[in-house]
Amino acid sequence: MLENIDGFVIDLDGTVYKGKDAIEGAMDTIAYLKSIGKRIAFLSNRGNISRKMCHDKLIGMGIDVEENEILLTSTVTANYLRENDENCQAWVLGEQGLRDELEIAGIKLADKPELADWLVITLHETLTYKELNEAFRAVRHGARIIATNEDKTFPGDGGDCIDVAGMIGAIEASTDQKVEVVIGKPSSLMAEAAFRAIGLPAERCIMIGDSLVSDIGLGKNAGMMTALVLTGSVNREAVEASNVTPDLIWDSLADLKRILESE
Amino acid sequence: MLENIDGFVIDLDGTVYKGKDAIEGAMDTIAYLKSIGKRIAFLSNRGNISRKMCHDKLIGMGIDVEENEILLTSTVTANYLRENDENCQAWVLGEQGLRDELEIAGIKLADKPELADWLVITLHETLTYKELNEAFRAVRHGARIIATNEDKTFPGDGGDCIDVAGMIGAIEASTDQKVEVVIGKPSSLMAEAAFRAIGLPAERCIMIGDSLVSDIGLGKNAGMMTALVLTGSVNREAVEASNVTPDLIWDSLADLKRILESE
Repeated sequence: MLENIDGFVIDLDGTVYKGKDAIEGAMDTIAYLKSIGKRIAFLSNRGNISRKMCHDKLIGMGIDVEENEILLTSTVTANYLRENDENCQAWVLGEQGLRDELEIAGIKLADKPELADWLVITLHETLTYKELNEAFRAVRHGARIIATNEDKTFPGDGGDCIDVAGMIGAIEASTDQKVEVVIGKPSSLMAEAAFRAIGLPAERCIMIGDSLVSDIGLGKNAGMMTALVLTGSVNREAVEASNVTPDLIWDSLADLKRILESE
Repeated sequence: MLENIDGFVIDLDGTVYKGKDAIEGAMDTIAYLKSIGKRIAFLSNRGNISRKMCHDKLIGMGIDVEENEILLTSTVTANYLRENDENCQAWVLGEQGLRDELEIAGIKLADKPELADWLVITLHETLTYKELNEAFRAVRHGARIIATNEDKTFPGDGGDCIDVAGMIGAIEASTDQKVEVVIGKPSSLMAEAAFRAIGLPAERCIMIGDSLVSDIGLGKNAGMMTALVLTGSVNREAVEASNVTPDLIWDSLADLKRILESE
């Protein structure tokens, strides 16, 4: 079934870890993939952390990955701005990880909201009214809106939590301006970044994730085989009610190791 | 021009005060209206403060009003829930003033978001992500959504600030649920509360405010004469560009005293 697959594009939140904890079997499966020479790209819609922060987190969970195997929307958003509006000034509604990635990409952070060409929105788990108001002011003074992703929820320690769609909704509803660019899955920008990193075409890759819209949607749009894991926000009932049909459905990433071992 | 008018329905933010300061001439005009026996209702879309807090603020500015002349959306929202779903439990995305009014009206505040029948949204100038996430959880667990108002901006000390529309936008975009009831101007619920308080019919009242949508819109919907003041977020240019035409346009509330003195 997976005999032609050498590239594994794997979601993180809800697939490899949930909140602060690794999902059972994820560590073993990833180590096994590496031991048999498969290529991996971890593709996450998280835009609030830097690649380095994410790498530290995975290593801390005992998951042995390289920093350049991690593709976050923070990095891909920063690269998008560098390629499309190199001399712009950005204002961030989000966290330090995104600011780090913008600075690594050479994007100037505006000194005040009124000077920004772009408002860059990502998840912001320590959001305050003051920060929301600064973002609002950036847009009222002409900043265009780009978002790392537009997920509605992410699986946190205490259940589903409000995600970037909420931050976008707040700004759009109060300014009457719309987000112009969304980087995250299921956007093709993320798939292209994954294929570049892995160095294989779509037909030799599988997209594995817990979200029907973001992960399975991206995989299908990009021409990859798709596998849904049930360790995130979707259960079998939700899959049956949906019009998105993954090629494979696994209880968790642990199933992948069992399948590969038995092939 | 104003000879048949005995009821003055007056907006607060941007009309009587702006941020922490009274608008020049507002105190004198209000004192003059009272001295000649006119009836007044202050009609504000503010839902984050209680009637008592607002009264204290006006008295502190030297504006001599009675507490029962003040009609805030916090009070009217609490009364709406008492009249329509008396035994409900409410979760507040907002500030203490709204909680005070709900408790005065006998509405139970839910102990946790998951127990709420209604999420009540108002302005929340100390909003945090945690509070936004609790509101999100209330709706994900079945709470219906009511908002004190849906203003996009309010005039703050440092310029226009993001208002309740932003908080509503965050919840709607992340939950796919829509707000069911909006109490604030231009809703007829606020006009009805004003006529009850003043004890006069629409044709003997004038609506005075700085917002074309909220104030002039409410006045026209309710059959009142309307006067726009230019001390808030609207200037003459914006009036000309709009398809809402107030009966009168004044630089500030001070014009009203001059007009009445000259009649």
